[in-house]
Amino acid sequence: MELGVGGSNPPSCTKKMEDKKKIKPSKELPLGFVDRQEKELLTRDFIISKIKEVMIKYGFQYLETPSFEYTDSIGKFLPDKERPDQGVFSFKDEKNWLSLRYDLTAPLARYIAKNYLEIPKPFKRYQLGTVWRNEKPGPGRFREFLQFDADFVGTKNLQADAELCILISEILEKCGLSKDDYIVKISSRKFAEELFKKTQIKSSEQISIVLRALDKIDRLGWNEVKKLLGKGREDKSGDYTKGADLNDKQIEYIENNIKDTESKTNDILEIIKIFEAYEFTNYKFDPSVIRGLEYYTGPIFEVNLNFVVKNAKGKAIQFGSIGGGGRYDNLISNFGNLECPATGISIGIDRLVYALMQKKEFNIKSAKPVIICVFDRENIKNYVDILTTLRSENISAEIYSGEGNLKKQMQYANKINSPAVILYGENEIKSKKATLRNLSSGEEISTEIKNLSNEIKKIL
Amino acid sequence: MELGVGGSNPPSCTKKMEDKKKIKPSKELPLGFVDRQEKELLTRDFIISKIKEVMIKYGFQYLETPSFEYTDSIGKFLPDKERPDQGVFSFKDEKNWLSLRYDLTAPLARYIAKNYLEIPKPFKRYQLGTVWRNEKPGPGRFREFLQFDADFVGTKNLQADAELCILISEILEKCGLSKDDYIVKISSRKFAEELFKKTQIKSSEQISIVLRALDKIDRLGWNEVKKLLGKGREDKSGDYTKGADLNDKQIEYIENNIKDTESKTNDILEIIKIFEAYEFTNYKFDPSVIRGLEYYTGPIFEVNLNFVVKNAKGKAIQFGSIGGGGRYDNLISNFGNLECPATGISIGIDRLVYALMQKKEFNIKSAKPVIICVFDRENIKNYVDILTTLRSENISAEIYSGEGNLKKQMQYANKINSPAVILYGENEIKSKKATLRNLSSGEEISTEIKNLSNEIKKIL
Repeated sequence: MELGVGGSNPPSCTKKMEDKKKIKPSKELPLGFVDRQEKELLTRDFIISKIKEVMIKYGFQYLETPSFEYTDSIGKFLPDKERPDQGVFSFKDEKNWLSLRYDLTAPLARYIAKNYLEIPKPFKRYQLGTVWRNEKPGPGRFREFLQFDADFVGTKNLQADAELCILISEILEKCGLSKDDYIVKISSRKFAEELFKKTQIKSSEQISIVLRALDKIDRLGWNEVKKLLGKGREDKSGDYTKGADLNDKQIEYIENNIKDTESKTNDILEIIKIFEAYEFTNYKFDPSVIRGLEYYTGPIFEVNLNFVVKNAKGKAIQFGSIGGGGRYDNLISNFGNLECPATGISIGIDRLVYALMQKKEFNIKSAKPVIICVFDRENIKNYVDILTTLRSENISAEIYSGEGNLKKQMQYANKINSPAVILYGENEIKSKKATLRNLSSGEEISTEIKNLSNEIKKIL
Repeated sequence: MELGVGGSNPPSCTKKMEDKKKIKPSKELPLGFVDRQEKELLTRDFIISKIKEVMIKYGFQYLETPSFEYTDSIGKFLPDKERPDQGVFSFKDEKNWLSLRYDLTAPLARYIAKNYLEIPKPFKRYQLGTVWRNEKPGPGRFREFLQFDADFVGTKNLQADAELCILISEILEKCGLSKDDYIVKISSRKFAEELFKKTQIKSSEQISIVLRALDKIDRLGWNEVKKLLGKGREDKSGDYTKGADLNDKQIEYIENNIKDTESKTNDILEIIKIFEAYEFTNYKFDPSVIRGLEYYTGPIFEVNLNFVVKNAKGKAIQFGSIGGGGRYDNLISNFGNLECPATGISIGIDRLVYALMQKKEFNIKSAKPVIICVFDRENIKNYVDILTTLRSENISAEIYSGEGNLKKQMQYANKINSPAVILYGENEIKSKKATLRNLSSGEEISTEIKNLSNEIKKIL
C-alpha cells in the first residue's frame, strides 16, 4: 500500500493500462532473487535472536547503515579494474552515483570516518543487513543476501580477533550446533606476505590474483588452483581466467608452505594463547585459509560447517564456509588521515539458515490458526466471541474469512495445516456447546465455549 | 567482510588506490538515507516482535519477496506518466530492467499471480521489508523505509477489511499506545466513485488528480486542496502543480459531501456491524479519507496518531498517518486472467518508531557491558575467568579490548555508559577479591569473584 507519506505523487495505473492494454507484466522473478517462505524466515528469526543475545552479552553496539552509499565510498572495495562498473548495483542521482552496498565493511569504514571524533575507542558494533552483488546469477548464486557482521574498530589488541572467533562459536552453539558441527579456521595474512617475500612476488596485480586463487583451494582443489597460479584456467563453462603467471618453483614453494601447519606467525601464537585462557578449542590453524580480499593485514578467520548439507536435488554438497573475516588495519585510513586499525567477522545468514534447516534436531514449527467455521454470517457475534476467547489465551485462531461453503472451509483448514476447526452452527448455538474437530486425528468433541481453549491446548 | 561465497572475483583495492592516489571517498551519506542508532533499532525490534506476535495469533503467513522485481511487474503502479521513469530505482540487467520495490503490494500481486494455484484461498500473508522511493529527498523525507504489510487475498468478505483495522489496533496497543493515542479512520472508494458520478468527472486523468488532491486535505487544508481541484497550485518552493480543472460547482459539491459524515456506503455499514461484534470502537468514519492510489475499489483505512510528536528541532508537528490501506479487487488481475479480490494495510515502521520514541512512558534501554579492566595482559586468564562467570549469568560484560592505560579504560567505560568496572590488579589477584566500581554512584566495593554477579545485578 502507498503510505501517503512525504509529498510524492502517488502511483497511478489506469492511464498506463490504457496505453499498453494487452501487455501483461511478468510473473517471474529476475534471476538470482527468491521468494522466502515461512519456515525459512522463522529459522532466520531464530538465528537473529541468538545473534542479538550474544552481541548484547559481549558488549557490542547495534548499528544500521543504509542500503545505499555514494559509489565512490564503496568504490575502493570494488572488484578489480577489468570490470570496474560491475559487482554493484549503481544509479545516477541528480549529480552523483549511488550504489547498493556490496558488504557491510565499506559502509562501516565510511561511518567511522564520518563519526570518528564521537565514537568510543575501541568501537564495537554489529549489523544485520542485506547486501547486493550485481553478478551473473547461477544455481544457488544469489544477488542479494543477508549478512551479519561484528567488528572491533580502533584497536590492534588481538584480544579482539580472538573474541570474534569465540563469539561466532557461541552463536552457532546457541543455534543448536555441537562442537563437531563446525570449526573456526585461523590463519594470518602475515603468512601470505611472507610467502610473497620469499617467492619475490611484488606486483600488486600478481598478489591480488594469487590471493584469489589460493582462496579457492577448498572449492577447486590444488590442481586447479595451480593453473590459476600459473598461466590461467578454463572453467567448465568455457570461461577463461587469466593466472598469476608464476613459475613452477614459485608455485611449488607456495604449495609446500601452505600445507605446513607447524610454522605459526606471532599473531597466531598470541591468539592461540588467548583461546587457551578462554578454554576455546574449536579452532584449527590452517595456512591454506587465505581470504580473497587484499585489505587484510593480520589474523584471518573462516567458519566452516562439518555436517552433510544437501542441495535442492538431495545430493550431498561440499558446503564450504558460512563466513569469515580478519584484521584490516589500513582500510579506514582510505577515508582520511586517520589511523584506525580494525578487525571483523561476517556470517552469511541465508547460508546458515539453509544448512540449519537440514539438521534433524532442528525443527522450527509455525503455529497455524484454529479455524472457526462460518455457517451464517448473521451469527458473526457468536463466532467473534469464540475468537476473542481463544486469542486472549494467545491461541492462533481465525474466523474463516473467505466466501465458501462448509466444504470449502474444511478444504481451506486442511490446506493451511490448521490443527482444528470449530463448528458452531444453529444447533450448537442453541445448546451453547461448540464442536471441536481435531484435523490430524479426525476426532470430534462437543464442549462448552469456556472449555475450548483448554481442549485446543491439548491438541497443539 | 567478503564472504568467499559463490565464484565472484573478490574486491581489490591496491590497484585502484594507485590509479587515483589522492582522491578520498566521501564520508557523507547520499541525501534521503540515514544511519540508525541503537535506541531506534531496539525500538524497531520491539515493534516488530509485537507485530509478529499479533500476526501469528491472527493466522497470517510470513512471506518475504526480494528487493528487486522486473520493472514491468511493478510498472503498473508507478507514478503517473508525467514522470514515467521516476519514483523507483531501476537497473538495466543483461536484457531486462530491474527495479527496487516501491511498496510491498506490487510484489505481492506478482507472487500471487505466480503461485495462484498453490496458495490457499483466502491467502493471508504479512511481510516486513524495506521499500525504496527514488524521489527528490528533503527534510524528513527518506528514500528508503521499512514497511509492514498485512493482506487478505482471494476474498471479498468484508470480515477481512474489518480484521485489518482491528489487528493494527492490537499491534499499536501491544506497543504501549492507549486508545486515546490513535484512531483508525475508515471510508470507502465507493464514496469517491459516487462523487465522480454526481459531478460528472469521467476522465481518468481528472479522477487521478482529484484523488491525489483530496488525499492532501490533512496536510494542506481545504483552501489549498481547492486550488488543486481547480486550476492548480503553487507551493512554497515555487513548484507549480496542475489542478484537476473542476468548476466551482463541482468543487463545492465535493466539499459539502466530503464533510458529510452521516451518509455511509453499504460496505462501510457492514464493516461497522463487524466492528460492533468485535466491540471495536477506536475508529471513525471520515469521508475525507481518500488515499491517493487509484487501484482501491472498496473500503479504505488510515491510521493516525493523536499524541504530540516533535520534529528534530523540538517543534510539535502535525504527524499525520502512520499507515493505511484498502481493498483492491482488480489489481492482481493485471497479471493475468485471474479474478482475485484483495484487501490490505500497511504501516510505516520508521515513522511509528519515531513517534513511539517520543512517548514518555516508552523507554527502551540497552544493556551496556560491565568493563573488566586490564592491568597486565599477562594476567588474561584471570580476567577471562571473571568474564566467563559474568557472561554465564547472562550479564553483558567485556574485557577492555583497546590498548590504553587504566585512565583511558575508565574514560572508555564512561563513554559507552557502562554501569560498572571491575578492577583486578596484582593486589586483588593476591587477595582473590575484585574491586567493583559503580559508575553512576562512584561507590566501590571489594568482593569475591563468585559474588560479583550478584553485586552487579544489584547495580543493574
